[in-house]
Parts: sequence; C-alpha cells; structure tokens
Amino acid sequence: MKIRAFAPATVANVACGFDIFGFAIGQLGDEVEVRFNDQNKVNILQITGDDGKLPLEASQNTAGVAVLKMLEHLQIEAGIDLIIHKKMPLNSGLGSSAASAVAAAVACNELLGNKLAKRELLPFAMEGERVACGAAIADNAAACLLGGLVLVQSYDPLCVVSLPVPAQLWAAVAHPHISLKTSHARAALPAQIPLKTAVAQWGQAAGFVAGVYQQNYALIAASLHDYVAEPHRAALIPHFYAVKNAAMAQGALGCSISGAGPSVFALCEGEQTAILAANAMQNAFIQNETPCTAYYSKLNENGAEILA
Amino acid sequence: MKIRAFAPATVANVACGFDIFGFAIGQLGDEVEVRFNDQNKVNILQITGDDGKLPLEASQNTAGVAVLKMLEHLQIEAGIDLIIHKKMPLNSGLGSSAASAVAAAVACNELLGNKLAKRELLPFAMEGERVACGAAIADNAAACLLGGLVLVQSYDPLCVVSLPVPAQLWAAVAHPHISLKTSHARAALPAQIPLKTAVAQWGQAAGFVAGVYQQNYALIAASLHDYVAEPHRAALIPHFYAVKNAAMAQGALGCSISGAGPSVFALCEGEQTAILAANAMQNAFIQNETPCTAYYSKLNENGAEILA
Repeated sequence: MKIRAFAPATVANVACGFDIFGFAIGQLGDEVEVRFNDQNKVNILQITGDDGKLPLEASQNTAGVAVLKMLEHLQIEAGIDLIIHKKMPLNSGLGSSAASAVAAAVACNELLGNKLAKRELLPFAMEGERVACGAAIADNAAACLLGGLVLVQSYDPLCVVSLPVPAQLWAAVAHPHISLKTSHARAALPAQIPLKTAVAQWGQAAGFVAGVYQQNYALIAASLHDYVAEPHRAALIPHFYAVKNAAMAQGALGCSISGAGPSVFALCEGEQTAILAANAMQNAFIQNETPCTAYYSKLNENGAEILA
Repeated sequence: MKIRAFAPATVANVACGFDIFGFAIGQLGDEVEVRFNDQNKVNILQITGDDGKLPLEASQNTAGVAVLKMLEHLQIEAGIDLIIHKKMPLNSGLGSSAASAVAAAVACNELLGNKLAKRELLPFAMEGERVACGAAIADNAAACLLGGLVLVQSYDPLCVVSLPVPAQLWAAVAHPHISLKTSHARAALPAQIPLKTAVAQWGQAAGFVAGVYQQNYALIAASLHDYVAEPHRAALIPHFYAVKNAAMAQGALGCSISGAGPSVFALCEGEQTAILAANAMQNAFIQNETPCTAYYSKLNENGAEILA
C-alpha cells in the first residue's frame, strides 16, 4: 500500500503577527509518498525537485524527522519508505520545509490507520522545522496542516486557533530567485524591541483578528503593518520597497515579507487586485534584474490532504 | 438648560493588551453637569467627591480640558459652566480621569446640539487624559465613551474597534485603598522588551480577540496573560499575587492589574464566579491589612450617556 499526501505552501508572519500568523496558499506545495518496508527503519528513497540539495538521511530531513517523531510518539516499530516530491522552491520563505514535514506526517498517519487527529500531527511537523531551520516554529506548519488562516496563540502550551477566512481575501506571492537562509533572516532581528513598538504591533495583530472576523477589509488593511521584522529584513531582499510599493499601488490591502523571505506576499480584496498585485510585484523584481516567479490564489482552506 | 452626563469606570490593558484593550464596568462612574454661562469662559463651578484634590482651573482639569478642546475644534465661542460629581475613587486605576473627561465631552456635545457623533468625542477626552496623566492614552477613554470592550488598533491614525462582549462575561474589581500615580506605574516599565516576550504577548492579544468573537471562554482564559506590565508593576501593589491567586482559585478566567493599578480586576464566566472572585480579592487585601472595596458587574455596554 502506497499513500501520497499533498501539503501547501504557506505565508508566515503575515506582516502583523511575527511568529504567530500563517496562511496556506493555492498552486504550490510538496507531495510525499510513504509505504511500509520490512527493514524496520525510516528511509528516504528519493527526493525529486530539490537539485540534490536536501539530505537523504531521515534524521536530518524535515520529512524524515516528522515520521521518526511520530513513530516514537506512537511507540510503533515500523519501517517506512518515503519519496519526497518538492514542487515548490526551497529557502523561499514559503514554508517549503513545513510542507514536506506536514505531507510526510499526514501520509504516515494515514498509512498507520489514522491513529491521530489532523491537529495532533502538528508537533511532529514542528520537529521537522527544528531540524530544517533550528527552531520548532509553528506558524508555517500549522497553516500548512490545517489550511486557511491560523493564529499560534501560544507555544507553551501549544495552542493554534483557526481564524475565519474572509470570502474575498486573495493572496499574491512573488518569489525572487535568490536564496536567503532563515537563520540569516533571524539573525537580522534585534533581541529587544522598544515597548512602544511592541504596543503598536499588538494593536495591529489584534486589529487583524478583528478584521477577519468582521470581514472588514479596511480594518485588515489598516492592520497589515510590520514594525518589527520588516524594517530589519527589508535590506536582505534587494528592491523590497520597490516591490511593496508596486503591490500597494495596485490596491493591495497590505504587502510584506513572506516568512523569513525572500518571497514577498500581498493580501488583496478580490481576484482582480491579486492578479494586478502579483504582476506588479513580479515586474518590479524583473525590472531590477532579479528573476522572479509570481503566484496568486485564494487562501487554501483545505490544508494538507491525502491524494487519491 | 442644564445637561447631565454619566461616564463609567473602566479597566484598561485587560492583562493581554497593554495600552490597547479596555472595557467599561457597571456601578461606578462620574457625572458631569454643564450649562451655558454668559462669561464666554469655561468655569468649573464645583467638584464633589474628590476631597478637594482636583484642580478647579479648567485648563488643568481633565473635564475642563475636554470641553476647551471641543470648543476649540468646533470654533465655537461659548461660555460653559461645569459641575463635576466624582462618584468613583481617584488614582485607582479605574479610569477616573477618563470618566470625568468623557462625561464632560458627552454633556457638552449635547448642550451644543450634538454637532459631533459619539465616537468623534474621543480625541477631546484623550486631551483630558494628557493633562491628567501626561499621555493622551485612549484605552480607558474609548471604553468609557463607547462602552463594552474596545481595542485601540492604532494611535496614529487613531482607530478604535468595538469588540463583541461574550454574553456571560462578568468583571470583578477590587480597589485597595492605597494611592498609586499612573506616572509612577509607567516609570516601572522597561523602555525595551525582549522580542520573544513581545511575540508571546501579541499571541495573547490576538487570541483574546479571537476568543471574544468565538465566545470561547477557554480561549479567553488562555489569553489573559500579561508578560509585559504585570511582572514590573506587581511589586507596586502590596499583596498583588495573593489577590490574584485568590481570584484564580475561584475560577476566574484571568486576573491582573486594572490599568496602572492599584485596582485589580478579574474576568469571569458568569455572575456567580464574579461574585466569588470579587469577595476573594477583597478578603485577600483585607487579610493583608489593606482596606479594599470590591465590585462586580457585567460589562457596561452603553458607555457614557446623557442622564434624564
């Protein structure tokens, strides 16, 4: 029996909620196939689409770690083979490591007879994140697993809240073809921030939540400001402000760095604005001699799923 | 013609949203009477209930300033007499200065023929706050004016969002009879906070907003933590942790410092828990030789209003 799962690309931070907000997008994501082996061992047989950049050693691979931790938790001694199909760019700020870990966890759970609820798979995916980027961050992984728009209300205890997705909320994403390590982007952040900045930021985060519950696009737009990470990380993404201005000029509700970057996302009211914003961001990168791929979609409300 | 307005006592910060959340409570509040005079001047004729502690000079008094700023904004040259009835304790952390300023603004607006919508009165009340406590803070004033539970999403531009009040949300408040200046409580706060603490705090603020929209009392309870102000201000309120523990032992959803203190508030699911929490907090102060008055109520959803 072979099980195949898909897990979507995600945007973390979402401008106003560094380390606490994330959403899943359409089009992009990873697929992982799993099947039992008789070696009593987790093997990664193959990885496609990564240009040989990702480790095949299970304990070093985000998907492998997710499966190992799940087996450990369930106290199951089983051999499982994985094949990972990377169908989205690596180190892009679009949650590539979370997508592989989540797809592996979801596929493995199905293979084992769904012993866990979907939500219960999050800690294993977070362990995958730990090996991939040095910290067990939940914002990409939770959005990837559950779909839609999520809030990581607390890490200890881990509490993830699914927020409503306003009916006309669309995302545009521009992925410049440059590499930026999450660890590098994390190092650009200060260890301390002014209390005044923090107050402004939690006003934004709280306003964003109120905005999505109210389906109030003006309030969402007013709340999509990042006073904390963007000012420090913008310099790591060439032409960031030109790209942001291009999206805002098309009427985006807000535009900021996706996760740790280098991808840039915009949230928009309606498909037409999302198309315009995606094109404008792509053009702004290209005009500055930075090759770029752009996407737009409604938020992916399904999250990870088993493929037929 | 004489107009009389009431404005309620308020709890600001609400544990998880320093400077951004506030709610209005029942029972307590100030009343302000206004009438025209023919001296073309704003006079405070009388203040009752303040033991002579508040300034009668209009430009130094929170209510006087609110009226002066409103007349200036409307470019109206009018003489107005004020009588202020303090019906709540001063320097209690229950928004006493905001209540006087808001009651004055609401009464004055009625006297002038309601040239402004209720919401538009907030900046004048904030100017009252500036003279009373040194900063034009909006959380008490907005909750006092509008009632219910409010979010100050942004100060610049000023954006206040009314949040839904869950049907069974009750407040308990204990006011120890000690004096604590807002300026003193502000000075106890650090200028910078760790980014990690800030992330935890905006997870709480965002979770609280999601909790009130969902009427999810468990999520509200999980979100009523203050990692920022309470650890620094607790020492300014004798026996704070004994009082907090007493409220939590009765099943309060959360308990923290009301505004800058010294009052302590608890939010509770249901009237019975609020009664128990109010009594437990009062007893904890009294057992520690600190006289204390306690109150409990549903949130005041009307805010400031004209009295017949």
